[in-house]
This record gives sequence, structure tokens and C-alpha cells, in this order.
Amino acid sequence: MPRTIKIAAAQMGPVHITSPRTEVITRMLSLLHSASSLGAQLVLFPETAFTTFFPRHLIASQASLDSYFEHGDNLPSSPNTKPLFDAAKELGIDISVGFAERTEEGEGYNASVYFSAEKGAVIAKYRKVHLPGSKEPFENPDAVNQLEKRYFQPGNLGFKAFRTPGLVAGAAKKGSEELGAGKGDPIMGMMICNDRRWAEGWRIYGMQGVEVVLCGYNTAGFAPDLWGTRKVMTPEEAEVDAVFHHKLVMQSNSYMNSCFSVSAAKAGLEDGKYDLIGGSCITSPEGHVLAEAKGKGDEIVFAEIDLEDCRQGKEKTFDFERHRRIDQYGLITEQTGVVEPELLP
Amino acid sequence: MPRTIKIAAAQMGPVHITSPRTEVITRMLSLLHSASSLGAQLVLFPETAFTTFFPRHLIASQASLDSYFEHGDNLPSSPNTKPLFDAAKELGIDISVGFAERTEEGEGYNASVYFSAEKGAVIAKYRKVHLPGSKEPFENPDAVNQLEKRYFQPGNLGFKAFRTPGLVAGAAKKGSEELGAGKGDPIMGMMICNDRRWAEGWRIYGMQGVEVVLCGYNTAGFAPDLWGTRKVMTPEEAEVDAVFHHKLVMQSNSYMNSCFSVSAAKAGLEDGKYDLIGGSCITSPEGHVLAEAKGKGDEIVFAEIDLEDCRQGKEKTFDFERHRRIDQYGLITEQTGVVEPELLP
Repeated sequence: MPRTIKIAAAQMGPVHITSPRTEVITRMLSLLHSASSLGAQLVLFPETAFTTFFPRHLIASQASLDSYFEHGDNLPSSPNTKPLFDAAKELGIDISVGFAERTEEGEGYNASVYFSAEKGAVIAKYRKVHLPGSKEPFENPDAVNQLEKRYFQPGNLGFKAFRTPGLVAGAAKKGSEELGAGKGDPIMGMMICNDRRWAEGWRIYGMQGVEVVLCGYNTAGFAPDLWGTRKVMTPEEAEVDAVFHHKLVMQSNSYMNSCFSVSAAKAGLEDGKYDLIGGSCITSPEGHVLAEAKGKGDEIVFAEIDLEDCRQGKEKTFDFERHRRIDQYGLITEQTGVVEPELLP
Repeated sequence: MPRTIKIAAAQMGPVHITSPRTEVITRMLSLLHSASSLGAQLVLFPETAFTTFFPRHLIASQASLDSYFEHGDNLPSSPNTKPLFDAAKELGIDISVGFAERTEEGEGYNASVYFSAEKGAVIAKYRKVHLPGSKEPFENPDAVNQLEKRYFQPGNLGFKAFRTPGLVAGAAKKGSEELGAGKGDPIMGMMICNDRRWAEGWRIYGMQGVEVVLCGYNTAGFAPDLWGTRKVMTPEEAEVDAVFHHKLVMQSNSYMNSCFSVSAAKAGLEDGKYDLIGGSCITSPEGHVLAEAKGKGDEIVFAEIDLEDCRQGKEKTFDFERHRRIDQYGLITEQTGVVEPELLP
């Protein structure tokens, strides 16, 4: 029995540091309506969708920094973001969206939520685990900073998969014993940007039977290289390579965990200066790109998928129960960094 | 300071069930000499290079089964395999080669060794961890069996990286404190066939600073599908997809662990009937294919690489010490198979 759903990535063009929030929400509503006209049941928006990707800036004032964050996590009722969630509920479309989260205790996270239209509520939250960049800015004033480790704490909610109600007609809901093949609500997981380059998060989702991984991102196409690395590229070459890496990890990790993936970029020249890649795409459990953004502006990437296509991989090549050998994997969780191999005698 | 080495994959065309061992060794010697004429310092041969890929056959007789195995693991002195190692030593070429290993205790492993020409000895051994297929044959007589779980034990040597002496001129050897950038002998790791689809093994090598991963394989291009999976492909489509998956995982896992990889196929119609893919290739730490087999017969795939190209990834995007979050990875080693997410209330 097919379990077909219609999904979309809402790629967004740049959101400038000067863009009013209301203007951004208007663009997001427009994307949501476009997706709705295609019949989309789920729309993924990018990482930090409501603002520019502010970790590229060294922001000295706490008030200025705070203006990029949502305070508390009740986005559906917060004035800044309520119109998007109201529209999603009205249109009957689930949405997942990235935002900067400021907790009541004052901690910052690079977070995303999953809002269920059927429930009329946020049913899952994720906090980005793999924060790239550094705490301290570069000394060179021409450098493009990546200050996520300064503004955010590493995510502390793990990679927790969840079932999404209402998307598959007639899906069993009551108990896991009823959830045989072709029966259950979709199993989804969220990750954010750099997380997609780390096989660990994908595997933990895979080990919960994930069927769709959602990943919003802001990925630099080119930034002046101040790391002393040796490879010199033109900005054009660097952007081609960045898109290549993005798609490579989305495709391969989808394949190795037998799941679909949806990725949504914030793209283009943000703040009028900083180039972000496009490449929003939907990949299959066999690792193929099913749909892909054409440009670097606001754009809906759409596909109708059958979650049952995950079964071939999950039951054969990637049947974890039969093939994984955790007795040989200890180092992965015992050790963070690199330990060189012993030298030969 | 560059750390340049010249490496080669020795792709082999089919080795039939009827092929005499001496004929196979003659072909391997010919490949070794071809690689030598290109200046190769290291040549990788396929999985179970000396024989047909016998796990596709249900072999009832123990004597017949035993004929595919090397007994003990001293390949350089065993009459069946000695000529290859003698030639490698004489030519000053390191080799890595896959073979079926029968231990003194009678256990079987799908194994590979790394032979150092400078040491004149095997300096590392690997036993395949991720055995695909099943213990029991298919009931359908038209099925192509994959009986690795019947003939082999899962590897019990872990993923142990090792340094290879003599390949990089002037490399420091004595103590790890001397092994700064540009100084050390290459760090390598072996895996076999299906292992390459499992990110765990790659990561464990990555966590030992691996610079080159070696992977021999026998991968079916097409086999009648008796798993009840739903996707129907022509043999041609299936082979294209199998090569795509092979390259996808070699490229992405090389990228995610900032290492080169070399993969060597046994390819073509083995035993006159069973199609194996080609696609032997060398990939870069940025995930690009540097060299690739053109056909499905005996063929050398060659590249000159600079191990220092691994540094950009290892020190920036994939600096494990700064970015990995093992407090969030527990499930990977706690659990083998899939546990479904909790249902929403």
C-alpha cells in the first residue's frame, strides 16, 4: 500500500540585515501559497529563515544580537512569526522552519521546529548539534566570520525522530504494534546546515527508521580563505564545489540510511555582499536527486514521494539489525578527536 | 612540504571458477608490472582476488569450499601466492590484496593484507566487518546467492589504521611527537566491499587521521531480485545504479573524513554468468574522482596524490576535536537495529 506524500522545500533568496521582519514573513507566506497550489502537505523553510544569517557578523551589542532571536519557543503565538503558522494551519500544510532560539535562561540555540497542521501545534523541536566556525572572530577585517560557536550552544536535544500525523491517509496511529509496512504515519527527523556533513546524526535518525530528513541551511559559496589552507579557487569554482559537497552528503546519507531528504537553502548575496549557495533539493532513498532548485531566489522545490520506497534499502542492504556490528564501533562514541595510529616497531 | 605518493588500483576482470590459480597470479603479476611502469608505489588488488567470488555458490563439500581459502595468513610464503609478494618486494611496490582466510582454528574471514616492500612483510591485516547477504541460500534456484554470512565470521580486528613506511621520502618515523604536518609516513586503512557503504568504519579510520582508505570489492551489477522489493530495473539500469552507489559512498565518505580512497573491483561476467561492476577509482579528500577505470577487464587506475591535501578538511570543516559531539551519539554504539520513535500522545 503506497504512502504517498507531497513535500516541498521553500528556498529563500537573501534576507538582508536591513530587511523588516514583516517583509520576510510576506515572502514566506507567498512561498507557502505557491507550495499549496502544488498540493504540498509539508513545506521546509531554511535555517534562520526569519533573519539574515547573522553569525557572519561580530555583533557587540546584546540588544542588537537579541533582535535576531525568537524569545521562548512558542513561534505559533509569537507576534513575529504567528502569521506563518496561522496560514499553515489554515491551508492544512505542515511546516518546518529554522530560527535562532533564546531560552528563558538566556541560552542561544540554532533551532528548528516542526508544526503539524492537524495538531495545530509544534510537535517537535531540534537544536543544531554540529556548530561550525569559531567563538572568536578573525583578526583580518576582510575575513567572513562564522561565529555560531559564539552565539549558540551545541544542541542538547539529540537527533529525535518523530511521527507526523495526518499526512498519510488511513495511517495507523494508536500503537507501534499496528504500524506494519504501509501503515504508519511518516517518520521524520530534522537537522540543520552543517549537521548534514556528519554521518552520526543521519545514522541516529536511520536507527529510528527515519523516512524523511529535513535540513535547512545557509552555506557560503565563497569566503576569503584565512585558514592558511592551500587550495586556491576562484569564487565561481568555490561555489560549484560547495553545491557539489551539499548534494553529495544529502544523496549519500539518504542512501546509507534509506530515507528521503529535503533541503532548503537561504541563497544569493545576503546583506548585499555574502554569497550563499542554492541547490535546495529532494533526494530519494536510493540517493538520487528527485527535484532541485533552478536559481538562487525564492523558489519552491516540489516532489510527490512514496515513503514505501524506503523499504528496499531498510530491509536489504541496510538492514541494520542483520548487518551493523556495534562491537567494532566503540571509538565513535569513546573519543571526540583524532588519535594517531601506533607506529610500527 | 608535499607528501606525494603514486598509487594504483589493479582492477581485475573475472576470475572464473575454473581458472587455475597460476593463471590468476600471472594476470596479477602483469598488472603489477604495468603499475610499476607508471611508477606506482602502492597497488591495491580486489577482494578475494585469487579466486572467483565463491560466496555466490552454495558449496556443499568442505574440501571444495576450502580450495577457495588461503590457509594461515602468511601469504608471502604460501606457494599459492608467494610469486606476487616476491615480485612486489623486488619491484619495491607495496601491495594490498583481498583473500579468503582460513585460520588454524578453522574459522573463515573475508580478509585483506597490506604488504610493505620496505619491510618485506605483511604489516597490517583487516577482516571484513560488514558481511552482506545471508547464511541460508535462496529457495528459488534462479536466485544469485550471497552467502558471506555462511562462509565467513564478521571481522574481529576492528578498523585499525596503520602507517606505511618508505613511501614518502624523508618521513619521520621514530615518535609521534615528530610527526607534524608534512612529516609522517602515510596513514592508511583497509576495508572490503560492503564495508564502504557503512559510515561507521570510515569514521573510525577518520578518527585515526587516515589519509588513504583502500577498498577492494566484488559487487553484483544485476541479480534477479528475490527479496520482494518493489523496484523493477533492467539489468543495464541496475548496473548503472550499482556503479552510482559505489562511487557515491567512496566520494562522500572520503569527503566526510578528509581522506583519499582507492577502490579496486573484480569486474565483468564471472563464472561466465554473474555480472560484476567495474568503476575502480581513486577519490580525493574533497570527494572528487581523480581517476577511474574505463572498462571491466584487467586495468590499472593510477594517480599521483599529495597527502597534504587531506589537511584542509581535517583542520577546518572536519576538525573532529572541535566539532564532534559524542554526548549526542550514544545510540550508534548502544543499539544494533531500529527502534521506532515514540508515538505522539
